[in-house]
Amino acid sequence: MISKATTKFLKSLQLKKYRRQERLFLVEGEKSVLEVLKSDFKVHQLLVTEKFMHDYAPEITPVKHDVVTEKMLASAGTFVTNNAALAVVEMKPNTPVEVSTGYTLVLDGVNDPGNLGTIIRTADWYGIRQIVASDETAEFYNPKVIAASKGSFCRVNVYYASLEKYLDEAGVPVYGAFMEGENIHEVKFAPSGILLLGNEARGISEKVMERVTCRITIPRYGAAESLNVAMATAIICDNITRFVR
Amino acid sequence: MISKATTKFLKSLQLKKYRRQERLFLVEGEKSVLEVLKSDFKVHQLLVTEKFMHDYAPEITPVKHDVVTEKMLASAGTFVTNNAALAVVEMKPNTPVEVSTGYTLVLDGVNDPGNLGTIIRTADWYGIRQIVASDETAEFYNPKVIAASKGSFCRVNVYYASLEKYLDEAGVPVYGAFMEGENIHEVKFAPSGILLLGNEARGISEKVMERVTCRITIPRYGAAESLNVAMATAIICDNITRFVR
Repeated sequence: MISKATTKFLKSLQLKKYRRQERLFLVEGEKSVLEVLKSDFKVHQLLVTEKFMHDYAPEITPVKHDVVTEKMLASAGTFVTNNAALAVVEMKPNTPVEVSTGYTLVLDGVNDPGNLGTIIRTADWYGIRQIVASDETAEFYNPKVIAASKGSFCRVNVYYASLEKYLDEAGVPVYGAFMEGENIHEVKFAPSGILLLGNEARGISEKVMERVTCRITIPRYGAAESLNVAMATAIICDNITRFVR
Repeated sequence: MISKATTKFLKSLQLKKYRRQERLFLVEGEKSVLEVLKSDFKVHQLLVTEKFMHDYAPEITPVKHDVVTEKMLASAGTFVTNNAALAVVEMKPNTPVEVSTGYTLVLDGVNDPGNLGTIIRTADWYGIRQIVASDETAEFYNPKVIAASKGSFCRVNVYYASLEKYLDEAGVPVYGAFMEGENIHEVKFAPSGILLLGNEARGISEKVMERVTCRITIPRYGAAESLNVAMATAIICDNITRFVR
């Protein structure tokens, strides 16, 4: 059982303001909670159903936890239904990870939390360990980002920084995704570099655009005006891997 | 102005049951409404803001319309905010379109409306005019599908059918996306064929699996367990276009 005050506290973490204040965020659902338990994130509090407790006792027992009903999980979190678990997890400081080789994703104002989460999952699929994001990009700890990343938030770091400064100091080719540019089927991607994607509606901003060394584009054969930014990320990552691995 | 009864009627179209009963669906927002106005869909009713009316009078005038406030649009539809328009549109009968060459997408139980909408948008980008879907697949006319398709629902037909029957009669190679299969970077895709994708959690179902002539897979370089089904669709479509166009 959990108290009303606890439920209220958990609910408050659905809002960015309180997440920032407490430096805590929510992780919900079986897969994501299991991933966070085996990651280097520090789990502050854990709510589990009896069934989840039964299925994963070795993972759960070392952590301070409460056994609750599915209904309580749903009322404390953002999921409509949750038959497994909810974890309150400590945020990490906003620091870059050392990336010696390969590619880094840079996001210039990707607004939609679902898109950011899916991009994190895609980056994880392609072995990209770091994403650098402008401050206008969706917040990494938003519950929708965490959910859409399907556990990949444990393996991919999102570092929020001034993109101008970051790109100026990067010293590798910057491939920017545009509606007009070199066909990605023909680009000879360098062994390491940056893949830059812009905002869903406005694309890459003026100041950042100046830092692009190669404008690239995904060939179109139909009538859609544009591709979703997460789709574009996935397609370009796949094309890069034809060269780089 | 619109009456309370009209608002209630529009709200009812957010539910599949009433959409089916009335054979009508909702299209919301500037881009989607403009697309539907110039498509061969029949617009049954149109609500517009004064600004939208002012900006697009030639498109709007031929259609029966009411000028309403932004607040009314939001209260009648599914969007949190809507500063442009909402259209009530007549469903088309569930019939296949003639597809003489190229590729057809087949979806075996893609559940999430956002995923289906994004897949429709991606199909439109790659010039794929028809998607064949199992009955367990999300409903084409769900407002979330319409919204995520970003207007592409006007150009891509989704035909709901028995996949077993459809695949048995297709007479072209069936490429099924699996976790284990031939690397898509090495597959020699035929000039025309079917690209088959499965459910978000369970993948391709047993009965449909038997009809696959070539199992394909997207090479992975990181640790994510899987890719989102819409991402996978986009990546594979891009690989097919390297061969087919």
